[in-house]
Amino acid sequence: MKQTAFSIGFIGAGRLATQLAMGLQAAGHHIRAVYSRTLASAERLSEHLGNGEGRVVTNRLADMPSCDLFIIAVPDKAVADMAGQWGALGKGGVVVHTAGSMPMDLLSPAALHYGVFYPMQTFTKEKKVDFTQVFIYIEASDASTLQLLQELGASLSPHVAELSSADRQFLHLGAVMACNFSNHLFDLAFSFLSRHGIEPGCLLPLVDETVRKLQEMHPHDGQTGPAARRDMEVIAHHLSMLQGDKDLLLIYKTLTESILGHSILPAAK
Amino acid sequence: MKQTAFSIGFIGAGRLATQLAMGLQAAGHHIRAVYSRTLASAERLSEHLGNGEGRVVTNRLADMPSCDLFIIAVPDKAVADMAGQWGALGKGGVVVHTAGSMPMDLLSPAALHYGVFYPMQTFTKEKKVDFTQVFIYIEASDASTLQLLQELGASLSPHVAELSSADRQFLHLGAVMACNFSNHLFDLAFSFLSRHGIEPGCLLPLVDETVRKLQEMHPHDGQTGPAARRDMEVIAHHLSMLQGDKDLLLIYKTLTESILGHSILPAAK
Repeated sequence: MKQTAFSIGFIGAGRLATQLAMGLQAAGHHIRAVYSRTLASAERLSEHLGNGEGRVVTNRLADMPSCDLFIIAVPDKAVADMAGQWGALGKGGVVVHTAGSMPMDLLSPAALHYGVFYPMQTFTKEKKVDFTQVFIYIEASDASTLQLLQELGASLSPHVAELSSADRQFLHLGAVMACNFSNHLFDLAFSFLSRHGIEPGCLLPLVDETVRKLQEMHPHDGQTGPAARRDMEVIAHHLSMLQGDKDLLLIYKTLTESILGHSILPAAK
Repeated sequence: MKQTAFSIGFIGAGRLATQLAMGLQAAGHHIRAVYSRTLASAERLSEHLGNGEGRVVTNRLADMPSCDLFIIAVPDKAVADMAGQWGALGKGGVVVHTAGSMPMDLLSPAALHYGVFYPMQTFTKEKKVDFTQVFIYIEASDASTLQLLQELGASLSPHVAELSSADRQFLHLGAVMACNFSNHLFDLAFSFLSRHGIEPGCLLPLVDETVRKLQEMHPHDGQTGPAARRDMEVIAHHLSMLQGDKDLLLIYKTLTESILGHSILPAAK
């Protein structure tokens, strides 16, 4: 399939914008313009792309040139405000946002043609993302926008699917639980071990295996540990080890009770 | 280094015993005997090893033949009782347990020479474990037992380290948080998506990336998501989506507050 090269304007220059701009450029598209409220951020993103090609780099939204597509990649809570600002300028164009938790219709004040381009991944500025491994969920206000987003998505990843705003919100919430919350548990466990003089890297093979098992079985069937085997003595001992740490104690208790399916009896505390 | 082949008796025939026995046999040791309270379990483990070699398979502890080493691989809470039973028989030998959460000294009633052989991994009966990737933590009552356990460990994995009972308990607790609890979050997220008609497999690339990042940075520096960026509107929206599910709601709130470092204000509920 012949691939169209789109000219793209980025509105926002954070982690997701940076990774997405690099991925789209590598896929043959032109990052024609970068806007950020902070000029230095816009310049930094542009440097990641290699400067040149007459790219507009600005902190004034009104200076954005016309593009095939504008990608609003700002914090979720700023999308609505940005859509209003864009609409007030009367520039039009096709406008999409990248926010997992935000409905598409937030963009209806921004332009006639709008949509969502949500790459479901955890983006860190320093780490280059392999987009061929990323699921991209799209949604569009009309058929021509949908086709544009399908082409754009296909240029990055074989995993592109249409998803409604409602379903995307469920997916985003699931991703927060599976990814952000488990990462926080890794953080707590690593810090706990470091505080007790134990090198936290020794948890890595265990974490790897936990995730590798997901390829072969539902996590429900792979659950192990004291709560899964209802070992109340070990649980009571762990709770006693955590007495000095209110945060860890509450998390241990909450997750253990969720696995057990009932409260830990006072006698076991 | 020339490797000694030990004769080994297993006391217990569950998941860990089965995997460990298969691993040790593959490493050249002789699984000379298998005891389980339930004869069928002992027979099942023995079948996994391929029967023969005159192996004793029994549900009577008194029938265990003499071996270089006896491995008590029973649920953590049953270790103390088993140590007492073994000691009462006066059979002696070198006796170890495999329980992350249990102190070594539980075995002092069992024999003169005792120790701990703790392979830190999540064991599922159906999945063959690659022991070369497993960290094994050992502890011994005396120098000769320590040497035996070092040799035994080295025959399975390049990652063998001595660890005190106190430190092993910290490590085990860290592993429960990083591995068992995160697996439970995967379970909750998968089930949540399934209930809303979304294929949970689409979370896998995200989970993989979350774990892959651990190779490159401390999880604290890799934390992303609504709580990490203090996006109280998305958090409030997620809480409202979970109103019907008391368990998920409590977990979402507890982990979000832990990431935020403070309670979610009533106004944001």
